[in-house]
Amino acid sequence: MFKKILIANRGEIALRVIRAAREMGVATVAVHSTADADAMHVRMADEAICIGPPPGTDSYLSVSSIIAACEVTGAEAVHPGYGFLSENAGFVQALEDHDIGFIGPTAEHIRMMGDKITAKDTMKKLGVPCVPGSDGGVPDYETAKKIADDMGYPVIIKATAGGGGRGMKLAKTADDLEVAFRTARSEGKSVFGNDEVYIEKYLTTPSHIEVQVFGDGKGNAVHLGERDCSLQRRHQKVFEEAPGPNITPELRKQIGETCAKAVAGINYIGAGTIEFLYENGEFYFIEMNTRLQVEHPVTECIYGQDLVREQLLVAAGEPMTFGQDDLVLDGHSIEVRINAEKLPNFSPCPGKVTAFHAPGGLGVRMDSALYTGYSIPPYYDSLIGKLIVHGRDRPEALARLKRALGELIIDGVDTTVPLFHALLEEDDVLTGDYNIHWLEKWLETNMG
Amino acid sequence: MFKKILIANRGEIALRVIRAAREMGVATVAVHSTADADAMHVRMADEAICIGPPPGTDSYLSVSSIIAACEVTGAEAVHPGYGFLSENAGFVQALEDHDIGFIGPTAEHIRMMGDKITAKDTMKKLGVPCVPGSDGGVPDYETAKKIADDMGYPVIIKATAGGGGRGMKLAKTADDLEVAFRTARSEGKSVFGNDEVYIEKYLTTPSHIEVQVFGDGKGNAVHLGERDCSLQRRHQKVFEEAPGPNITPELRKQIGETCAKAVAGINYIGAGTIEFLYENGEFYFIEMNTRLQVEHPVTECIYGQDLVREQLLVAAGEPMTFGQDDLVLDGHSIEVRINAEKLPNFSPCPGKVTAFHAPGGLGVRMDSALYTGYSIPPYYDSLIGKLIVHGRDRPEALARLKRALGELIIDGVDTTVPLFHALLEEDDVLTGDYNIHWLEKWLETNMG
Repeated sequence: MFKKILIANRGEIALRVIRAAREMGVATVAVHSTADADAMHVRMADEAICIGPPPGTDSYLSVSSIIAACEVTGAEAVHPGYGFLSENAGFVQALEDHDIGFIGPTAEHIRMMGDKITAKDTMKKLGVPCVPGSDGGVPDYETAKKIADDMGYPVIIKATAGGGGRGMKLAKTADDLEVAFRTARSEGKSVFGNDEVYIEKYLTTPSHIEVQVFGDGKGNAVHLGERDCSLQRRHQKVFEEAPGPNITPELRKQIGETCAKAVAGINYIGAGTIEFLYENGEFYFIEMNTRLQVEHPVTECIYGQDLVREQLLVAAGEPMTFGQDDLVLDGHSIEVRINAEKLPNFSPCPGKVTAFHAPGGLGVRMDSALYTGYSIPPYYDSLIGKLIVHGRDRPEALARLKRALGELIIDGVDTTVPLFHALLEEDDVLTGDYNIHWLEKWLETNMG
Repeated sequence: MFKKILIANRGEIALRVIRAAREMGVATVAVHSTADADAMHVRMADEAICIGPPPGTDSYLSVSSIIAACEVTGAEAVHPGYGFLSENAGFVQALEDHDIGFIGPTAEHIRMMGDKITAKDTMKKLGVPCVPGSDGGVPDYETAKKIADDMGYPVIIKATAGGGGRGMKLAKTADDLEVAFRTARSEGKSVFGNDEVYIEKYLTTPSHIEVQVFGDGKGNAVHLGERDCSLQRRHQKVFEEAPGPNITPELRKQIGETCAKAVAGINYIGAGTIEFLYENGEFYFIEMNTRLQVEHPVTECIYGQDLVREQLLVAAGEPMTFGQDDLVLDGHSIEVRINAEKLPNFSPCPGKVTAFHAPGGLGVRMDSALYTGYSIPPYYDSLIGKLIVHGRDRPEALARLKRALGELIIDGVDTTVPLFHALLEEDDVLTGDYNIHWLEKWLETNMG
């Protein structure tokens, strides 16, 4: 096992990694920007190094600074957390060139899944169900028209290089297609520097279902069931749960085994997530995230496993400590993302936290880098904490979430906590009857 | 189910009950002394009523004040927590006379187990293994001598009405017996007003093993395995774990089923604990506690059940939500009791908590009524929090405990946290090789 690792991240995910490393007896190095000198991850790590000023590009995204920090401290490997450099193949390559380990998959896996068309082709070949569509770039409008007419409307045109909702255009009927095609293409060109687009069947009321997978890099892999992350605002997840309220054990086994087999087939190493749209009993591959996800704790709760510990183990060449048969789903878990944002507009709300008190008791997990007196800097993502609950079943988890939210105190800044109090009064949330459009519609009605 | 309950307690256990009640949609009434006006349980409950000044006898132990508080608030039942009135049969009787429910066993059960001789007789008849001894009061020294000579030394003489180490005298050999007999008798008379004593075989290096039981009051009962609570200082537990590090699955099943059968046999209702000394594969009954115990969370962690929720359910006449087959042991859990005490003498250390920050992350549960700015009053038990961890196995739980203790911040008062840091460096603790005398000896050597 590594003696010392460096965590190329900040906030709650840096703490998450420090916690796992400490429990394994692995020393930790925190890196931080000048704006984060008083951050919790700096206080909690065994060593800390300042790697530059905000914004991210000058510090947390600076490959050379992070490699220098490894060399100065003797860190043998880097955990990237999520975001920042976590899915940057060039970074992984640079680490390798400097003989520093990366706690995550190979540069090749990252590249393979980073390009949407290659990812889809690969997954299709590996037997993962995909959205019907053009199977690659569409050269011109006439080809697009033929594919869409054959497949049936609605369809969506997506820039190959796009992401986060940019470069995506919907054509509800054949009449909309030409405008959608040309707009997606020009947006792809202007935003991402690449005008290639592809075409896919558009699902009207899908859920976002993602399957957690874990591979040992030697052709063995398991799945840890699915998460339902359909409650999203502007493509950002806000409320995640496992298992999915509408996924049967049969469906779980079927899609889980398909995903495990797929990642085993590419000798995938470490934690990964295969994201799907789900509608009427069918799964449609969207993308694979080759990193730990924000919402991984709900999976940890119901399977009783520590995914970060396992990431460190396989990155160090150790065998995984669990196989598929050890993974027995227990109960229900929900996570809410607490952002420093002011409702109803979700405008970022950095500032000094004058009081922080975490909820406690049975079935409550708080992953947060807040402390009383901490000043949230304005330069980064507004996520300041994740409240995760675990109950024997979904109603118990919902009741526990409500109870725990009531105990949480974050004074001094506005947060998204009131949103969750409101959502927990909604019948659709209580019954699990929602899809990826539900929250946007609810926000229009209730906070529009 | 009840609409509203009153919690006749304070501190972390009052919070524990409020949390369970809130998750069930049951309103809560806190009672408090004038010294506890700013206490967390007062802030967290739906209603709060002041029932008198400290010490306990004028408020938390005042039966009439608590009944009045129920009548004023319309609380239908009382949860007693632990300590205070939790094992007071007269209190339960008084509630019954006022048509108020008690969330616990019947007055008869409490009386039966409150008297040590009746308890032992009852358990023996129910098939629970007991320490060999006099089977009741010993009228005179000559009888004691005959019993001890037959049984073999060492033996212990105990005042029938005694407890907490008072009125207990050890005779290592026949030469010590007369002095031990007469001293126990006079201490029983002077401290407890009763000079009856009994005699038992004395075990030299036993563990304290206790079995958690739960009954529905209708002749059905289950066990939730055992806890090892051998690490004690002056008969006060400080470190508790489940399962016991030296109890095999076969032993667990055997003693668990014996205990479940025994409490089913007396139609026991609610949570109870049957305490044993354990030596060389044999269990010896000490006493039964007819209430929730401080250390119940370790059992909740490994069995994934909420004992307080279940207490409320059966007290309201509802069926239990789990049977023996639902109770599958998962992993290992450890609790440490954090007291506001100054080492090395464990002198109480009340005062203002200038900063409180609970540990977080995977497998960590904090049950505490502390908050930043809270002043711990000098009138009550010094327990200010319980840190509970859950891991896949004992080494993982120990590593997690160490990590979580490192995150915990309690500034302004001295606590027993340094004791746990030190204990986690001891091989005997790490291997589970300890008995009920271990900690006292360790303290003599290390803090004497």
